[in-house]
Amino acid sequence: MDNLNTYIEHTLLKQDAVKEDFIKLFNEAKENKFFGVCINPAYVELAKKHLKNTDVKIVTVIGFPLGANKTIVKSLETLTAIKDGADEIDMVMNVTELKNKNYDIVKNDIMAVKAVCDDHILKVILETDLLTKDEIVKACEICAEAGADIVKTSTGFVKNGVGAKVEDVKLMHDTVEKYGMKVKASGGIKTREQAIAMIEAGASRLGTSSGVQIIKG
Amino acid sequence: MDNLNTYIEHTLLKQDAVKEDFIKLFNEAKENKFFGVCINPAYVELAKKHLKNTDVKIVTVIGFPLGANKTIVKSLETLTAIKDGADEIDMVMNVTELKNKNYDIVKNDIMAVKAVCDDHILKVILETDLLTKDEIVKACEICAEAGADIVKTSTGFVKNGVGAKVEDVKLMHDTVEKYGMKVKASGGIKTREQAIAMIEAGASRLGTSSGVQIIKG
Repeated sequence: MDNLNTYIEHTLLKQDAVKEDFIKLFNEAKENKFFGVCINPAYVELAKKHLKNTDVKIVTVIGFPLGANKTIVKSLETLTAIKDGADEIDMVMNVTELKNKNYDIVKNDIMAVKAVCDDHILKVILETDLLTKDEIVKACEICAEAGADIVKTSTGFVKNGVGAKVEDVKLMHDTVEKYGMKVKASGGIKTREQAIAMIEAGASRLGTSSGVQIIKG
Repeated sequence: MDNLNTYIEHTLLKQDAVKEDFIKLFNEAKENKFFGVCINPAYVELAKKHLKNTDVKIVTVIGFPLGANKTIVKSLETLTAIKDGADEIDMVMNVTELKNKNYDIVKNDIMAVKAVCDDHILKVILETDLLTKDEIVKACEICAEAGADIVKTSTGFVKNGVGAKVEDVKLMHDTVEKYGMKVKASGGIKTREQAIAMIEAGASRLGTSSGVQIIKG
């Protein structure tokens, strides 16, 4: 795997990151030719400024990390992020409404974000740490119906959560492959071995803050 | 302290809470005559339905828990929450911009939310776990300048965070009292002893998911 770097969305979502941390992230992404950077929406403009004329994609997160925001707010947050320069959108699914079996609410929430995405890639974060296997499959199917492009395992913010698990990535991949959708593994990926295991399980993208150490082995 | 209940904002912000959990929260708040309930914005309408014709206030959280959202998004989220029936607004400050010493950005972020609050109480969550003592004082002063009503210690979502600390509550109270502002202690308050210590340090409100056990001692 000599192209691990092309899988990596170099991630900085810490609430107390400062400007220098972001600049370091952007520079590392350029130097290592990572697929992209993943940052909170307030800093997309800064990313755009530092990454223009590069191939590094700007990924941001919507309704993050709880997903318990009104649909109109997720939708406006997406619109604003795209205006600011975001290439890809990682939204958090409404976990409560999935568990309430209000599947139409979950689907409409995703569709409303998709509607403002145009041709920007939309990923939906399922938060697999909080879901049963059946709920993971159901969530993947809802994402497919709603027109999402990629299903993503985790925010990385669940208390005592594991994040991406090989078995969940495999289950998600097996469920969405027939729809032409992909899987992003994220949360807790810190080593080269973990990264490769996620890709072997079917991940096309890796969200991690340990990208540099992963590619250096 | 036989009126501890009047300090308590009965809190449920878990990402995987289901409808029954919310109904239980609302019923407990009514039975125990708590000051209010504190929930994510997607569930304010549900709270309004169950708490109409009661004195229980509906408190919701904005830009929660990272505070790293664009100002326009925090502002629209607030407007939507008030339309849905929220009585009070607990927004998360932009911690990154405080640490960057971009104080005008921090202040404008709060003022934009205040502008849509009208006469609804605005609290600003500082996330004290991530701040130095000097940063706590500075944040309190910015909140006063921006017209906030209450400063609040914590989201309860910081990894390995403590949440409300007596010394921080005291520092915040000492800083904002002269502006006629109050303090809400939140995060990690689980016992009657902790609750009383927070009030003695200057807290006028307590955000906790352990309200029932606190008042039963």
